[in-house]
Formats: sequence, structure tokens, C-alpha cells
Amino acid sequence: MIALGIDPGTATLGFGVVSLESNRLRLLDAGVVRTRTSETDAQRLAELETALYSLVAQHHPDRVAVERLFCQRNVQTAMAVGQARAVALLVAAHHALPVDEPTPNEVKQAVCGNGAADKQQVATMVQRLLSVTLTGAADDATDALAAAIGCLYRAAAQPASVEPAARAWR
Amino acid sequence: MIALGIDPGTATLGFGVVSLESNRLRLLDAGVVRTRTSETDAQRLAELETALYSLVAQHHPDRVAVERLFCQRNVQTAMAVGQARAVALLVAAHHALPVDEPTPNEVKQAVCGNGAADKQQVATMVQRLLSVTLTGAADDATDALAAAIGCLYRAAAQPASVEPAARAWR
Repeated sequence: MIALGIDPGTATLGFGVVSLESNRLRLLDAGVVRTRTSETDAQRLAELETALYSLVAQHHPDRVAVERLFCQRNVQTAMAVGQARAVALLVAAHHALPVDEPTPNEVKQAVCGNGAADKQQVATMVQRLLSVTLTGAADDATDALAAAIGCLYRAAAQPASVEPAARAWR
Repeated sequence: MIALGIDPGTATLGFGVVSLESNRLRLLDAGVVRTRTSETDAQRLAELETALYSLVAQHHPDRVAVERLFCQRNVQTAMAVGQARAVALLVAAHHALPVDEPTPNEVKQAVCGNGAADKQQVATMVQRLLSVTLTGAADDATDALAAAIGCLYRAAAQPASVEPAARAWR
């Protein structure tokens, strides 16, 4: 199973693509998409959309994880994050991909076992779980990877769905 | 010239389509798109996108006006508005339509001649300028019409662009 994690932002959008096969996590891709302040919001969002389309075409994720952000400092930031979040949700909808929207606490709980873990702990655990060293990786990319990992763990923990009608016969 | 005005919101998105020909405004369409809280944000945004695509296909607007909102009460509202705004901006970008992002004051100034006009004044002037009676129209639809009207006025007031090289010859 492959998950695309997204840390939304209009200026900088972090992404991380992780696979989980036979209980083993693997880093497939990670980075950030930056847009220029000299461009209009419409152009910037269209650029984010193009970048996400490319990532989906390249990695064929089974799920998308977009962190749900509650504690934005101010309404301007919240608006910018909401915009970028919408691009991620639309790209997922266009590909009929299920979307996980974990809270930051759920992500931290998933990768660190502690919902109150700090950024450094998250970065350490992401690298440990993926068996990689991320030198100079942007926080946004690390956060996106953490969301993808949490999403894969959650999906793997869910029992395989059983058709209700079939179940009634047993 | 035809403008599509949009009052963005994830739960309720207002729209208004207005034409300006020979100095005369005409109402072409107005209403709201409502999405259900029982659906995921991705589904809701995809529905808004589908509705906006239909409006563009039906009315072939030359410009899109999306009100720029500053005074959101809280970050949750700002996030929801930002999301819906992104859908409008993306639909505009996909059709290469120029986007006007007037502030609420600019919209009020354009339709009422007063940047501090209240909702009732805006509704009155929108109906007067369009020579229609909007009975039971949602505020969101009226606000979207006001944005469309302001956008048309602004576009009409701009001098027709003159090619700089040609100008240098005069």
C-alpha cells in the first residue's frame, strides 16, 4: 500500500510518499513544492495542483493523508492553508482516492507513540521508521512523511472489510 | 462582458452571473450551491467544483470575481472559506479567466458608493442596478452579484490596453 502525505501551504507544500509492504515502510519520494509570491493565488494553486497530479501519476498512491490543522496562529495563515488543503482534497477526489485527515496529535501518536512529541522527535522517528537519513529536509517534507506513515499504520490496522451480506450467512 | 461573482464557503457558496453591454447591467443567473455536512470535505469541494464548471460552461464569463475576506471570525471559518476560495481560483485558472479579488469595502464602494454600506444597502443597490426584485435571495447570492457588478465596473473603467510599442510612436 502506498500513501501520499501532504503538509498543505500555498507558499510551501510538503509531500511525502511512503509504501508499506510486508510490514516494512519504504520512502519513495519526499520534498516541497514552492510557489512565488509574485504570482496570483490562482496561479500558485494551479501549480500546486499540477505538482500533485504528477506525484499521483508517478507513484499511484492508494491513499492520501492531509494533516488537519487546528492551531493556526491567525486567520490569514488559516486561509492560505485552507486553500492549499483544498487543492490536495480535490486532486484526491479526482482520482477517487480515500483521504485521511489526521490531527497533528494523531500523527505524532502514530510515529512517536506520543501525541505531544516535538518536531525533533517526529523527524528522528520518521528517519528511523524509514531507515533513511534526511539531511537538510524541510520540516514540511518531514511532516508530510509523518502523515503518510500514520495513514499507512491506520489503514493496516483496520480489519479487511467483509461484505455485510456475506457476513449475515455465517 | 460577463462576470461570474463568487461568495466562497464550503457549506454554502453563492454565485451571481452578470453581463455589462452598452453600459447596461443584466442579471443572467444567481443562486447558491449547498453541500452536505455528512460528506467529506473532498466530496464537498468536488461538488462545488462541478457546479462552478457548469456555470462557466453555461455562461462563458470573461472574468471571475472572488471576494477577498479579511475579517473572518475564527480560524475554522477562515479555513473553510479558504478551501472554497481555492476551488473558485482553480476553476478560473483552468479556464484562463482573469480573477478579480476585491475587498468587501471595494465591493460596497462599487455598488453603493460607500465602502461602509450595510448588507441591506448592498441588497437594495444590487436589485436597483440589475432592475430586478430578488425575493428570498440568499445573502450569499446577493454578495456574489455585488462582486460581479463591481468587477464589471472596474473592468469597464480601465482604458482599453494599448500596445506599448504602438504608443511610443504617438
